Amino acid sequence: MAKQKSANGLFALPESVFHVPFDGKFSLECCATTPEAKLSGSDAKRELGKIVERLYEHQRALYAEDRRAVLCVFQAMDAAGKDSTIRTVFSGVNPAGFQVFAFKQPSKEELDHDFLWRSAVRLPERGRFGVFNRSYYEETLVVRVHPEYLAGQRLPRLSNPPTKKQLERLWKERFASIRDHEEHLARNGTVILKFFLNVSQQEQHRRFLSRLEEPDKHWKFSEGDLAESKHWPAYMHAYQEALAATSRPWAPWYAVPADDKPTMRVLVADILDRTLQEMKPTYPAVDGDEKERLEEIRAQLAARRPYFSAVRDPKS
Amino acid sequence: MAKQKSANGLFALPESVFHVPFDGKFSLECCATTPEAKLSGSDAKRELGKIVERLYEHQRALYAEDRRAVLCVFQAMDAAGKDSTIRTVFSGVNPAGFQVFAFKQPSKEELDHDFLWRSAVRLPERGRFGVFNRSYYEETLVVRVHPEYLAGQRLPRLSNPPTKKQLERLWKERFASIRDHEEHLARNGTVILKFFLNVSQQEQHRRFLSRLEEPDKHWKFSEGDLAESKHWPAYMHAYQEALAATSRPWAPWYAVPADDKPTMRVLVADILDRTLQEMKPTYPAVDGDEKERLEEIRAQLAARRPYFSAVRDPKS
Repeated sequence: MAKQKSANGLFALPESVFHVPFDGKFSLECCATTPEAKLSGSDAKRELGKIVERLYEHQRALYAEDRRAVLCVFQAMDAAGKDSTIRTVFSGVNPAGFQVFAFKQPSKEELDHDFLWRSAVRLPERGRFGVFNRSYYEETLVVRVHPEYLAGQRLPRLSNPPTKKQLERLWKERFASIRDHEEHLARNGTVILKFFLNVSQQEQHRRFLSRLEEPDKHWKFSEGDLAESKHWPAYMHAYQEALAATSRPWAPWYAVPADDKPTMRVLVADILDRTLQEMKPTYPAVDGDEKERLEEIRAQLAARRPYFSAVRDPKS
Repeated sequence: MAKQKSANGLFALPESVFHVPFDGKFSLECCATTPEAKLSGSDAKRELGKIVERLYEHQRALYAEDRRAVLCVFQAMDAAGKDSTIRTVFSGVNPAGFQVFAFKQPSKEELDHDFLWRSAVRLPERGRFGVFNRSYYEETLVVRVHPEYLAGQRLPRLSNPPTKKQLERLWKERFASIRDHEEHLARNGTVILKFFLNVSQQEQHRRFLSRLEEPDKHWKFSEGDLAESKHWPAYMHAYQEALAATSRPWAPWYAVPADDKPTMRVLVADILDRTLQEMKPTYPAVDGDEKERLEEIRAQLAARRPYFSAVRDPKS
């Protein structure tokens, strides 16, 4: 499944066995929900710790370079581990250059705009990391499984209820809109990584049960999640179609096995780490004239040192 | 130049001699800056008054329908009459369903996003009229005439200064981004009309002079406008390229002769009016059950009339 390709000229895409192919041909059947090699809890923790440190360094350079942004999109079924992955993978980054947005049910104002609007408003600025916990992809996932939600979107060219033909056109158009939007962002300096945390229904149910058995996990359980789980085949079909239609070298999807959480987190962090290694964010170089000027200012400040503190000159 | 075409299935595009062709072939040389038939001041005023009343009715229906938005983009050289056209054509509409945004020099925050971001945030909601006084098109106009502005945008894949080849790629990509963005908006219910107010340089200079001669027009004059006028041929080239590349049935450009202001305003209002006539915004129909229910509530309220006012029952 892996193949190195150029991500729209911005950097070389790292190789990965988890890439969803870029030619539109993709089957979820071929995607494992369990990792080939499961890491022990302590190994995973150590490995993740090392990567998190590197991510911190990459982020500092990205911020100083101030030329590109990184957008990570997370999509998955409930209980696949989106929240905890975001929490652990990004635990070490500087919050000043980092922002997470979770997209739930759209507001009345958001429904009054096109379906990309509410996330477009929240895109990361140059030099920053942005994370979308769910995203505009929900418009081709939960809305595809529940086309009755479309009534609230008041779209033109849709009857109520919509016909099969209208819906087919709609998903095709949404995929085109998403591809165009992501390509535009990539061209303008946003590096996009999309993670599908691929959990099995069996593992999901095991996690629901543990939420009900452990009192301090009760708050995580929602009866609605269990109801959604009954639409599993429809969701898998929607995911497969969306991933196939929108995985491109400039905005690749990664289908990461999610049945083992510690291993999954390392896999996600590793993909991000290797992408940033390829991006090579660099601190802006200071040229000769600028260097001289900085030296001048340094000398002036150094001369005034006795006035502003008793700190020792490291050179003396 | 005129040809009726379907605007992405949302409605039939009205015929107009001012359409910029949709096949990418367009020359500003063929575009008159003076109207074929100049209206007298009083005729223009009367005509505009009638159209403005109709626009008010269209707007009410568009708002009640709550399904589509209308976006009018105005682009022109300085002193072509953008502000006064917006003021007079939209003087009668309900401000509650109407919004104008003027885009000037981008802010630091705006420069940290892709070039469509700052206007995307300000797109009109379903049921509303939105007007952009200048727009993302400036990124292919003033920035094309002054490529040195690109340094502040910190784009990837551009050297400083950029090479000719890089710039050619950039304008091509920007046109593609704009076309994709507008098509996405059109598919999702935004009807887009774009007006290029086509003024001659001679007329522009006449207006600059009158700004300097009449004290209460002094505030409108800026020395920068005169400096920009010196780049006239470069601007005309940029306009021609941008209009040719982005006039499409779902987001047509209209090149309107602007040397006679009263006539120009009528021409712009007429295009908008005829577009809305084709769009046929309609008040939502109330069905049988709902009608019965409304009649029930009316009867209940009518019975309580003596308690809340001394207003006469119009039926009695």
